Amino acid sequence: MLGPIDQGERYELTSPTALPQAAGFLWNRRMMIQVTCRGYAVAQFMQPEPAKYAHAPNLEAKTFMQPEQAYYAHHPGRFVYVKDEDTGELFSAPYEPVRAPLESFQFRAGRHDLGWTVEHLGLRVEMVLGLPTDDVAELWELRITNLSGRSRRLSAVPYFPIGYMSWMNQSAQWRSDLGGIVASCVTPYQKVADYFKNQQLKDKTYFLCERAPDAWEASQSAFEGEGGLHNPSALQVEQLAGGDARYETPAASVQYRLTLQAHGSESYRFLFGPALDDSEIAQMRSTYLSEAGFARTREAYARYIDGGRGCLRIKTPDAEFDNFINHWLPRQVFYHGDVNRLSTDPQTRNYLQDNLGMAYIAPAVTRGALLHALSQQHANGSMPDGILLVEGAELKYINQVPHTDHCVWLPVCLQAYLDETADFALLDVEVAGMTVAARLDAAMAWLQQDRDARGLSYIAQGDWCDPMNMVGYQGRGVSGWLTVAAAYAMRLWSGICADASRPEQAVHWQAAADELNAAANLHLWDGDWFARGITDDGVVFGVSKDTEGRIYLNPQSWAMLSGAASAGQRAKMLAAIDAQLETPHGVAMFNPPYSRMREDVGRVTQKHPGSAENGAVYNHAASFYVHALYDAGEADRAYSALRRMIPGPDRGDYLQRGQLPVFIPNYYRGAHQQYPRTAGRSSQLFNTGTAAWAYRCVIEGLCGLRGDALGLRVKPQLPSGWNELNAEREFRGARFLLQVRRTGQHRVLLDDQPLRDGLVRDIQPGRDYRLDVELA
Amino acid sequence: MLGPIDQGERYELTSPTALPQAAGFLWNRRMMIQVTCRGYAVAQFMQPEPAKYAHAPNLEAKTFMQPEQAYYAHHPGRFVYVKDEDTGELFSAPYEPVRAPLESFQFRAGRHDLGWTVEHLGLRVEMVLGLPTDDVAELWELRITNLSGRSRRLSAVPYFPIGYMSWMNQSAQWRSDLGGIVASCVTPYQKVADYFKNQQLKDKTYFLCERAPDAWEASQSAFEGEGGLHNPSALQVEQLAGGDARYETPAASVQYRLTLQAHGSESYRFLFGPALDDSEIAQMRSTYLSEAGFARTREAYARYIDGGRGCLRIKTPDAEFDNFINHWLPRQVFYHGDVNRLSTDPQTRNYLQDNLGMAYIAPAVTRGALLHALSQQHANGSMPDGILLVEGAELKYINQVPHTDHCVWLPVCLQAYLDETADFALLDVEVAGMTVAARLDAAMAWLQQDRDARGLSYIAQGDWCDPMNMVGYQGRGVSGWLTVAAAYAMRLWSGICADASRPEQAVHWQAAADELNAAANLHLWDGDWFARGITDDGVVFGVSKDTEGRIYLNPQSWAMLSGAASAGQRAKMLAAIDAQLETPHGVAMFNPPYSRMREDVGRVTQKHPGSAENGAVYNHAASFYVHALYDAGEADRAYSALRRMIPGPDRGDYLQRGQLPVFIPNYYRGAHQQYPRTAGRSSQLFNTGTAAWAYRCVIEGLCGLRGDALGLRVKPQLPSGWNELNAEREFRGARFLLQVRRTGQHRVLLDDQPLRDGLVRDIQPGRDYRLDVELA
Repeated sequence: MLGPIDQGERYELTSPTALPQAAGFLWNRRMMIQVTCRGYAVAQFMQPEPAKYAHAPNLEAKTFMQPEQAYYAHHPGRFVYVKDEDTGELFSAPYEPVRAPLESFQFRAGRHDLGWTVEHLGLRVEMVLGLPTDDVAELWELRITNLSGRSRRLSAVPYFPIGYMSWMNQSAQWRSDLGGIVASCVTPYQKVADYFKNQQLKDKTYFLCERAPDAWEASQSAFEGEGGLHNPSALQVEQLAGGDARYETPAASVQYRLTLQAHGSESYRFLFGPALDDSEIAQMRSTYLSEAGFARTREAYARYIDGGRGCLRIKTPDAEFDNFINHWLPRQVFYHGDVNRLSTDPQTRNYLQDNLGMAYIAPAVTRGALLHALSQQHANGSMPDGILLVEGAELKYINQVPHTDHCVWLPVCLQAYLDETADFALLDVEVAGMTVAARLDAAMAWLQQDRDARGLSYIAQGDWCDPMNMVGYQGRGVSGWLTVAAAYAMRLWSGICADASRPEQAVHWQAAADELNAAANLHLWDGDWFARGITDDGVVFGVSKDTEGRIYLNPQSWAMLSGAASAGQRAKMLAAIDAQLETPHGVAMFNPPYSRMREDVGRVTQKHPGSAENGAVYNHAASFYVHALYDAGEADRAYSALRRMIPGPDRGDYLQRGQLPVFIPNYYRGAHQQYPRTAGRSSQLFNTGTAAWAYRCVIEGLCGLRGDALGLRVKPQLPSGWNELNAEREFRGARFLLQVRRTGQHRVLLDDQPLRDGLVRDIQPGRDYRLDVELA
Repeated sequence: MLGPIDQGERYELTSPTALPQAAGFLWNRRMMIQVTCRGYAVAQFMQPEPAKYAHAPNLEAKTFMQPEQAYYAHHPGRFVYVKDEDTGELFSAPYEPVRAPLESFQFRAGRHDLGWTVEHLGLRVEMVLGLPTDDVAELWELRITNLSGRSRRLSAVPYFPIGYMSWMNQSAQWRSDLGGIVASCVTPYQKVADYFKNQQLKDKTYFLCERAPDAWEASQSAFEGEGGLHNPSALQVEQLAGGDARYETPAASVQYRLTLQAHGSESYRFLFGPALDDSEIAQMRSTYLSEAGFARTREAYARYIDGGRGCLRIKTPDAEFDNFINHWLPRQVFYHGDVNRLSTDPQTRNYLQDNLGMAYIAPAVTRGALLHALSQQHANGSMPDGILLVEGAELKYINQVPHTDHCVWLPVCLQAYLDETADFALLDVEVAGMTVAARLDAAMAWLQQDRDARGLSYIAQGDWCDPMNMVGYQGRGVSGWLTVAAAYAMRLWSGICADASRPEQAVHWQAAADELNAAANLHLWDGDWFARGITDDGVVFGVSKDTEGRIYLNPQSWAMLSGAASAGQRAKMLAAIDAQLETPHGVAMFNPPYSRMREDVGRVTQKHPGSAENGAVYNHAASFYVHALYDAGEADRAYSALRRMIPGPDRGDYLQRGQLPVFIPNYYRGAHQQYPRTAGRSSQLFNTGTAAWAYRCVIEGLCGLRGDALGLRVKPQLPSGWNELNAEREFRGARFLLQVRRTGQHRVLLDDQPLRDGLVRDIQPGRDYRLDVELA
């Protein structure tokens, strides 16, 4: 089903039914589109809040992306009907809505574009989607080729549903002056103030044709008729009727009647997107809708995406893994860091972690993000629940619910940035009257004081785990994870202070970390692992006596990182994780899943067993674990957990996962014992802090090429099944060529010279360094 | 297409394609369901806010009903697939999703139930939907009859999609203990406080089978498969697979395998609805799901609906009209008055007008509503934008936008109530420390003071016309309609005060009304009609120099009612209305429609030309006009406008309207000159203040049987084409049998005695009165 990898850059799927929700995604600085192999699509653009130009057939709620849920016949999509005018036979490319049994099908998720080649009735239909870099538009190419050896009379009918735009006003019609179908609406509002806010909204959706079609139809229901989308009435007659939509659901369909000689082909280009007004539509047409415009745009977009290629190229015994790490993972990291998940108020922890990932792609972006985040720090040292990115943005949804972990991510992100850059000057930069260093001190001090009498960190309505919302909503409950995470944050900050000639603070924050670790050990150690927390009513949970939610992964990972766990404890924890959290689909965030609401824990326990946080392989948590495992030298466990985050054709469960290996999803469904049919399924959601951590783990853990204040530390950690690894790593302007071999002895050579402490010092930008590592 | 009327109580449609959105609706005190002839359905229930138990396939926005928009394949509906197990042929009843070309089709919109009879492949499928009176549940009966004269092996597969219940948690499975499919979810929330609010939500949806099926499937996508809903994969094999839904979109489908001998038939009963928990489901089953339970429920529900039959039965030369007035219009009035549009915060003007209608059905309800509304009057005499009906309700949506007309509706509603009951004791009832009379004084005083220096009424962000939101948002703009409407309200209140022995107030409020009328004449009379208003910037609009929105209906109607218009003015206004607002589909609210936003008028100008308020036949406004016309003795114009509100088979445009004549919709689309294809189409929405006014117009205007303080005034106003009318009217406990004949002379006889002033005095409850009226 999953075809060979072409040029190491794209994944191909050769069946539309095996992984029906499998999708690729493209984005630019202003939009994002996820398109399934069958032709369904979800696209959003920023104006400045996320908006749509192709809608569902009903009035959708404004919500976060939910790509795990099944698509349905009238879901937004991009389809091309092809009709044989001699026989009346009909099919659609790529697959929906006709769902004809195609002779051949190929969906390619490329880094720069998405493409399909399908063959049916002796015809080949090729479709390619690309994006511009800075505008909101879809660039579609369509080619139809006659493979049948005889002349064919055909109709090609692109059908792009526009959907329910507005209850206040919607219409669509063919515009010969603009050369396409233009749908118009007014974004509904009721309060006068919203009118002024809405004035600059792009309330038009255009579908522009480079070549004038023979006919068109702008009304969804007129197009569909009684035939249904699988066999539209409008295609049962000779020609589309040229109708408009007047307060009816708009759709863009245009008909090309063509005669193809044997082996002949015809090509078409289309532009689909939102606009403010007619002149913007005309402008978009003249900028993009031509062979030259498409070519220029394709090239510019490839440059843009290649700008996010990251600092690492590897070659290991696992070619699928290499392809993912070299091409897809940095692309996902870049997506997060470059556009912040197309949100105007990213959660603070997400914002800092997404920008942590940018340290390996464009460290200046990380620097800017740290400064921007700190500019919104509260006077008491705490961080807000979200970071506002544009003028007029507001904290929405979950960002109105108080969480207590945001300060933790400051030193975590800063550490990665400094490791990559050694830019300690950043610490002295003033942000709103305080230096970065002073702000970090204040953030750590806030964490230090936001604790109960036992010295454990309050959880309020949640920590990293958003929906753990009732542990401490009364103000007394504490988080086991946050207690050790705060310790880790202080430990990191202590180390940075030491490197930055702030010895007093270094001592102070290490002592503070020790205190937290001691409190965790006193109150949360359950004999074989650390508890997840203690509720408002003093109930310790995530412990051996619990029958559901007995063990959580995060407190163990972070206790390893913070120093709370002794070597002995660590061994017990790892054994417990192996026994209780390991699943066929990865390492679960907690287990066993909750089967019903546990009132003193909260929303996480209500999530469907087998979905999201509840008993799932939540990759973000798994990525912390991998990081902790590499930190602890657990190379086999680390690689095993890391590898299973990546959906891939070499894994027996890829059909179960239902996803192409072009991103790490935020979770795989859990509860494999209770619900084996659905366990392991991908959420299909590419928004996840996992990407940054996974990339970091590969660079710093697996390849063992981690920066520090003095230079580059070299300590590859290959899984025991591997005998070699080659890597090329860009670091502080230099290039490191790493070759790792398992020879039975341990040795590190830098340009053929032994490097006894494994630290490359005095790195010269522009230079190449050759690292040869031998492992026992 | 539209069949004969059976028993004067139900309408039949014999094609599923001619009026594809035509629907019937049923309701009870806790729920409402609108079902189209093709099987799509929208159902809502109160808990206490409106909620759904069958959802769209995606996450829908919470919004008002929008039944004008096209349905789509996966829209919620109630379907039964029937498969011939010998031939594999498949169809579905009533029509969707297979859309097979049926041999015969009949959809019956009854007052107490909805029913279908369809025939195809030699089989008859009958489906009937009924509701209980006080519970939230759908009672479905299904009968399949073999018409083919030979034995048949069949599968009958009810398919009730449940849809996207929740992103947090959703599942469904067959429950043999309960005898049905039960879908469960958790209503998503993010704020802790919402958890406690949500605890009593009915988060389960059940589909219970009286007879155990042979197989079932609870997952939508497993049922549909690659076949599509028009040809589901699950029906291409012998038996449903018995699958469950685990964080997948739930659907209820059950399969009965049956063999029908020639002329044999089988019947099934199902119960579909929401529940809190299993025990409630079990309770619902035992209460309803049996032959006896269905019969008992049907009888009780018919009694409930018949309790809203109203006070009038007529027989006129227009049988369709009679049927609508006798059976359907009071039902629509009752729906509004009994359940307040299933809202917890009806707009104040809607609440008072819906209860105005109840004066003709159950006047005690009107009385209670007046008292309830007054209990929420502000200290300054103004009325809130919405009336809260339940503990914890909040003003939502449009009720957060300030409108200035709400006080007007107090005397309007009160007048109708007093005309019907002469219950002047109501005026002395104390509501929160003030008598009703004092509260009415205060409300009128608020209207009197909320005016500008010219004496015109401020409009703020809207008046009766919600979306006229930018005329006066800066605090200066005024409403022409509200100025004369306030005058009319004061005039009514003056009259009530006169009847209630409050002569000083009577004089005071008539003088106040005169002052308003004078101001209207001075500032708003445009030469041939009254202007609609003056904007914040002093621009008079709704006047002859406007090319769009040149003339509005409401200011004319209410100027006629208020006394602002002299006889000479009235003649000019009527001529202008005839010339500019008359359309083939009724009398438009204003014309010409706006083609673009007019910033100083607001949202109404942005509504799509041809939809809603913009240039449409907005029946509520038309009903005021009819009321004013009867008040002015304009019998022909009145009947003509009234008649066109009613969709009916005798009208050439019923196909255009696309609606069965079972309710008056809130509007018919306008802009017949600009968009003739869509003009006249029904909104399909039965929530409208029109119903109460239309009923009142028939009773008091057409039949001329209006109460006053002393008795019943008799003054029928037949259109000139009619020579007779018979009516039976219940009034103050007595029964009046009216016979009107056009004889060439004017005479009114009461029980054969001349009634010189047309006023029946000293009415005795329990008595029958015979009224014979001769018209010139």
